[in-house]
Amino acid sequence: MTLPDVQSEPDVRGIGIDEVGISGLRYPVSIFHAEHGKQDTVASISLSVSLPPEQKGSHLSRFVEVLDEHAGELTPQSIPTVLQRVRDRLDAHSATLAIRFPYFLRRSAPVSRASALIDYACGIDGSIHDDVLDFAISAGVPVTSVCPCSKAISDYGAHNQRGTVTIHAVPTWSDGTDHLWLEDLIEVAEASGSSPVFPLLKRDDERHVTMAAYDHPVFVEDMVRSVADRLRHDPRIVRFSVEAVNDESIHNHAAFARLAWPPSHPETARW
Amino acid sequence: MTLPDVQSEPDVRGIGIDEVGISGLRYPVSIFHAEHGKQDTVASISLSVSLPPEQKGSHLSRFVEVLDEHAGELTPQSIPTVLQRVRDRLDAHSATLAIRFPYFLRRSAPVSRASALIDYACGIDGSIHDDVLDFAISAGVPVTSVCPCSKAISDYGAHNQRGTVTIHAVPTWSDGTDHLWLEDLIEVAEASGSSPVFPLLKRDDERHVTMAAYDHPVFVEDMVRSVADRLRHDPRIVRFSVEAVNDESIHNHAAFARLAWPPSHPETARW
Amino acid sequence: MTLPDVQSEPDVRGIGIDEVGISGLRYPVSIFHAEHGKQDTVASISLSVSLPPEQKGSHLSRFVEVLDEHAGELTPQSIPTVLQRVRDRLDAHSATLAIRFPYFLRRSAPVSRASALIDYACGIDGSIHDDVLDFAISAGVPVTSVCPCSKAISDYGAHNQRGTVTIHAVPTWSDGTDHLWLEDLIEVAEASGSSPVFPLLKRDDERHVTMAAYDHPVFVEDMVRSVADRLRHDPRIVRFSVEAVNDESIHNHAAFARLAWPPSHPETARW
Amino acid sequence: MTLPDVQSEPDVRGIGIDEVGISGLRYPVSIFHAEHGKQDTVASISLSVSLPPEQKGSHLSRFVEVLDEHAGELTPQSIPTVLQRVRDRLDAHSATLAIRFPYFLRRSAPVSRASALIDYACGIDGSIHDDVLDFAISAGVPVTSVCPCSKAISDYGAHNQRGTVTIHAVPTWSDGTDHLWLEDLIEVAEASGSSPVFPLLKRDDERHVTMAAYDHPVFVEDMVRSVADRLRHDPRIVRFSVEAVNDESIHNHAAFARLAWPPSHPETARW
Repeated sequence: MTLPDVQSEPDVRGIGIDEVGISGLRYPVSIFHAEHGKQDTVASISLSVSLPPEQKGSHLSRFVEVLDEHAGELTPQSIPTVLQRVRDRLDAHSATLAIRFPYFLRRSAPVSRASALIDYACGIDGSIHDDVLDFAISAGVPVTSVCPCSKAISDYGAHNQRGTVTIHAVPTWSDGTDHLWLEDLIEVAEASGSSPVFPLLKRDDERHVTMAAYDHPVFVEDMVRSVADRLRHDPRIVRFSVEAVNDESIHNHAAFARLAWPPSHPETARW
Repeated sequence: MTLPDVQSEPDVRGIGIDEVGISGLRYPVSIFHAEHGKQDTVASISLSVSLPPEQKGSHLSRFVEVLDEHAGELTPQSIPTVLQRVRDRLDAHSATLAIRFPYFLRRSAPVSRASALIDYACGIDGSIHDDVLDFAISAGVPVTSVCPCSKAISDYGAHNQRGTVTIHAVPTWSDGTDHLWLEDLIEVAEASGSSPVFPLLKRDDERHVTMAAYDHPVFVEDMVRSVADRLRHDPRIVRFSVEAVNDESIHNHAAFARLAWPPSHPETARW
Repeated sequence: MTLPDVQSEPDVRGIGIDEVGISGLRYPVSIFHAEHGKQDTVASISLSVSLPPEQKGSHLSRFVEVLDEHAGELTPQSIPTVLQRVRDRLDAHSATLAIRFPYFLRRSAPVSRASALIDYACGIDGSIHDDVLDFAISAGVPVTSVCPCSKAISDYGAHNQRGTVTIHAVPTWSDGTDHLWLEDLIEVAEASGSSPVFPLLKRDDERHVTMAAYDHPVFVEDMVRSVADRLRHDPRIVRFSVEAVNDESIHNHAAFARLAWPPSHPETARW
Repeated sequence: MTLPDVQSEPDVRGIGIDEVGISGLRYPVSIFHAEHGKQDTVASISLSVSLPPEQKGSHLSRFVEVLDEHAGELTPQSIPTVLQRVRDRLDAHSATLAIRFPYFLRRSAPVSRASALIDYACGIDGSIHDDVLDFAISAGVPVTSVCPCSKAISDYGAHNQRGTVTIHAVPTWSDGTDHLWLEDLIEVAEASGSSPVFPLLKRDDERHVTMAAYDHPVFVEDMVRSVADRLRHDPRIVRFSVEAVNDESIHNHAAFARLAWPPSHPETARW
């Protein structure tokens, strides 16, 4: 029996669609980088293509087929392959991929050197339009932040809290292994807080972290500027954005700051 | 045309169902209390009945009808009415209601007295079995907590963070207005932290809160004990549970403590 | 005692910040529109200003002060006032406001006319740069969607599911009451699905909705095109975007489509 | 320098704490079962101990140390070891562990046999009190559900949606490999819906699933009864609970049913 192919029927409204695809797909993936090695994690994935005005629908099962083929090894080098493969399978003009996953690194405590794993909320985004590839990586990094105002105005103590510094960066493309990777973003983000956050601290470490953080108070404004200051002259980066969010310990809301680099023109449409 | 009533058909498996109903219903509600007045907020609601072994299904539209009739004024006194009405409309043996909503109180800063609203994650739970009514209220309250260990082992500073203290309490039933209400739970929970959290603090207030919190360091263990110590002899309470969770500022995980009062037997089934 | 004003100190890094402010603030708000009346609901709010390169920090308590003054009546006309007030209080170049809230409308079932409230995930966004005001409204609307492919290839039945159609629109500015409001977006989004979703359906209604939906199968592609077809010639709209997401009933992931109008150039930076 | 051990100080309030520990810890884990093999995934973990009335605090870093030692291979046999190790390291009377993780199985489409991975929301819970071990496993399983009422009252079509069936089960303890495991719960849950959900369906498969689901309409009531009917006589199970939730495609709320087996007495405290 030949079943009708409804998706391939024509549409007469003359309206092209920027993205059609699947989202919220959980999948085990292996993130691979030549220098930093391979890591098995679980991702949430969206994958889409553009649809021309004259075509009624997209064939969504093909997205899962392509992902299943490539989830075993996702690398900076393999993303273009995935995008081209999706675009070819769907006969589309452009394709877009967004992957979000926890990325784990082993962290040693500053004094005892006791170690355990800590997770960062990372992502890989890629898109291809007219054979032009766009590629970005991101990392959301927990930090401790001590409030400079609270410290300056108080005889003792200072409110502090967990904050998150998130960097999105478009790397300069490179076929070598010297290009930017998640570890680089994580390092810069961690250095922007009053102290990194640790998975495991013994008493000597807690003393060290408490005093080191108190010695380096930062606002959310300082965190995004610190990241921008480090990244704006980095030859491995075309452009980036950074956001810092503090889950204020003395308030029931968050404080945040964000900036994009190079500075965007205020008239840029946000929707 | 008479449509078949599938729900009223018999089921032959002989298996009664503890709860059948609706959940995740957002609805504007008015929370009313004789002493504390009326507050308009938005709730997430679940409402259910038991189903006897011989009946195939429940008529879910009736839950929404009953809620729509009573959402305009929910009071400690009206909950039994809602439960009885649901039980009657569904011809059921028992009925259960759970309402979760943000509850707002105006809070003044400790020095400047500048004020704004702050939200608490509150709830009302009720159930009726064989004409026996069970009723509970709950409040999730943000607090600041300064770590006693960090303070004791450091020459200066102390890590602190936002925590949440959540109390569930079964009040002694009372027809008067002297019974326990949300404000009572919120007050006890706030007093258990190093400092309350505020919606609005000017510089003088921030200095006050920073030092007051540093002067009263507490572990999550201290917070649940402080609440228990205050509530265990309260004649308005039959039983309660309390949980404290700290979003640790130096870690990427939370610290928590919880207890139930009177102490539960460890062999109690949790599922 | 005069406390130091750390935020007003200079910063030497020469990096301006696009947005500094507060986010995740829950607040009761009244949404008012001249034609559609007033509605009390609970919002999640972010409010921010730009910070020039030479200033160290922003004074976050002022955001809450301004919100507390204006939450009692938020209207299309009052948003510019809030933005100007924030900008003036913070002595900033630009200001941005984002409000998200459930918005409730009473909906009658198609046959029985039984009615109850249904919630839509709405939003108001505003920003001001150099005295240029940008303003947008949004609505996320649940719909039923029946799959055209499943219907066409099956002898009977068709998979269907709840979907969500979200429209962001920048209205043409108007001082009159004829401008676009949330009800307009909701109506267009609901009409794009196979059937609206209802809070309360009796048996006659369920029969009606089941068959009406089966008679109007739509893909996510059809939903965004239907919305675009209705809105692209609407003189009350400057530009809009629309996204449709289906929580696929036969899959463990979602299907989605999105488009912006006028069509955006693919080279537009996304970060 | 010897740092004070604040946690080991005495507390005078005389209030024991049921659970003190850590929660929300993300960690890569390997789930191992003798018959079903090993799977790398990412878990969210809570781990706690009881605290006697006379002790001020618990040493939270030890929880992470124990987890880091054992995350490499979690099995039904290793859970007691983890619990005993935590209890010993913390010198506690009881210990509790809860692990939640996506668990992936490869699923073939019913006609084309095209395959991909699908995720189930699984969990392992264990606790030890006085050398009595309690152990449970759980699986949250997506299914398609076609409404029997909608089908019966309509001339054509029937509303359907994605639902989730979640089973918690306490297995009979066994040192062999014949005991209950996650695959068993998943199989029973999937069989309770109108059709399983698939990660990848080609057109022939979609036709098959559409008609198979239409041929087997089920209410949430049917799903929990179907599971109970299968499990209540299973010699590998001591007790279980099951919940079915439908994200109703014609409503903006969910329908749910739940039951515990053996039937619980209604007077059982819920807090």
